[in-house]
Amino acid sequence: MPRIGVLLSGCGVYDGTEIHEAVLTLLALDRAGAEIVCMAPDMEQYHVINHLTQEVMNETRNVLVESARIARGNIKNLGEVSADEIDGLIIPGGFGAAKNLSDFAFRGPDATVHPEVKRLIRELVEAGKPIGAICIAPAVVTAALSDIRPEVTIGFDEATASAIEKMGGVHHNCPVHDFHVDEKHKIVTTPAYMLGPSIKDVAMGIEKLVNKVIELCQS
Amino acid sequence: MPRIGVLLSGCGVYDGTEIHEAVLTLLALDRAGAEIVCMAPDMEQYHVINHLTQEVMNETRNVLVESARIARGNIKNLGEVSADEIDGLIIPGGFGAAKNLSDFAFRGPDATVHPEVKRLIRELVEAGKPIGAICIAPAVVTAALSDIRPEVTIGFDEATASAIEKMGGVHHNCPVHDFHVDEKHKIVTTPAYMLGPSIKDVAMGIEKLVNKVIELCQS
Repeated sequence: MPRIGVLLSGCGVYDGTEIHEAVLTLLALDRAGAEIVCMAPDMEQYHVINHLTQEVMNETRNVLVESARIARGNIKNLGEVSADEIDGLIIPGGFGAAKNLSDFAFRGPDATVHPEVKRLIRELVEAGKPIGAICIAPAVVTAALSDIRPEVTIGFDEATASAIEKMGGVHHNCPVHDFHVDEKHKIVTTPAYMLGPSIKDVAMGIEKLVNKVIELCQS
Repeated sequence: MPRIGVLLSGCGVYDGTEIHEAVLTLLALDRAGAEIVCMAPDMEQYHVINHLTQEVMNETRNVLVESARIARGNIKNLGEVSADEIDGLIIPGGFGAAKNLSDFAFRGPDATVHPEVKRLIRELVEAGKPIGAICIAPAVVTAALSDIRPEVTIGFDEATASAIEKMGGVHHNCPVHDFHVDEKHKIVTTPAYMLGPSIKDVAMGIEKLVNKVIELCQS
């Protein structure tokens, strides 16, 4: 039974993890018989968005504490997780990946990655362990691995694909029900809500991505 | 294509909607071809729980605003939804059902139901439209319909089943992968995380519940 980390970035598409993508990841992992290790960085969110109005709210929330909502309290502080403990990692999307795990939402191709996120991603690649990245999360993986030119997809969005190429990544177009795999670096990516349109479409790509990550754990 | 309402109560198992149950409901509805109408009451949450420590946090959150996280912003104010607009309703669980939609968590068999929630539930039953209730939400449905003696399940928990019987409901034991249906009143219930243990188990019962609710829309 592989142990798969799920790296969360808050709880809600506009300021944290995209909730559907995270839950679909947990469902596919559980159905595949994986042991799930949820984790998130212990840090303040970049901001808090009112998901009804899309306006910024005058409050602060902690990424680890809010991510615990998706994990039903069963979650680790990313800073205390090493690559030795897991056989692979999956990063769901949502703006939290681009605002909390990195600053890709604000700096595009000049993005920097949260040090703990970058450390874990690089440890895993060095150990030959697979990483799955969903929606906008492939931009975070690319920014963390620009020196090795990872192959990823975020769907068809030209501006985002161009930013990924500028960061050193190799972008491949891909529909929502499928995934792209960089066999050399064991990086698996699927567009999810970068394309949508709805949860049943997103579920198809995520289920395939999860099964591919588990397959790569055993190869 | 039936239009099915999904009544949310916040975002997180300890103070709002159980996130997995809500997302699994949306997934099954979308796969079955239903049109989804998310809704929640515009009210303050009873309280805010830190899902990492389970402690009460010194802040306030709005049920409609937090529910919008699960709905990706596509959500209606319950107060503006009538039974005419939907063909059926599903209420996921989580403590939000027992703390925000009702006070069952605090008052047990003496529970009262939020007036807008009670109004919609009763309108639907009077119109012969089905209601699905997941996890602890059958307690809310029972409290709203005590005069008609609805048949429901919350799994096997004796204290909760006893409270349901005291409110006028008829409780049937049921495993997590199945559901109970009150054919007379078109009320469908499944235990979900009242039993668990994990998301793949909960998904089985919820998928069956959703398909039964859709079938009852057409009967």
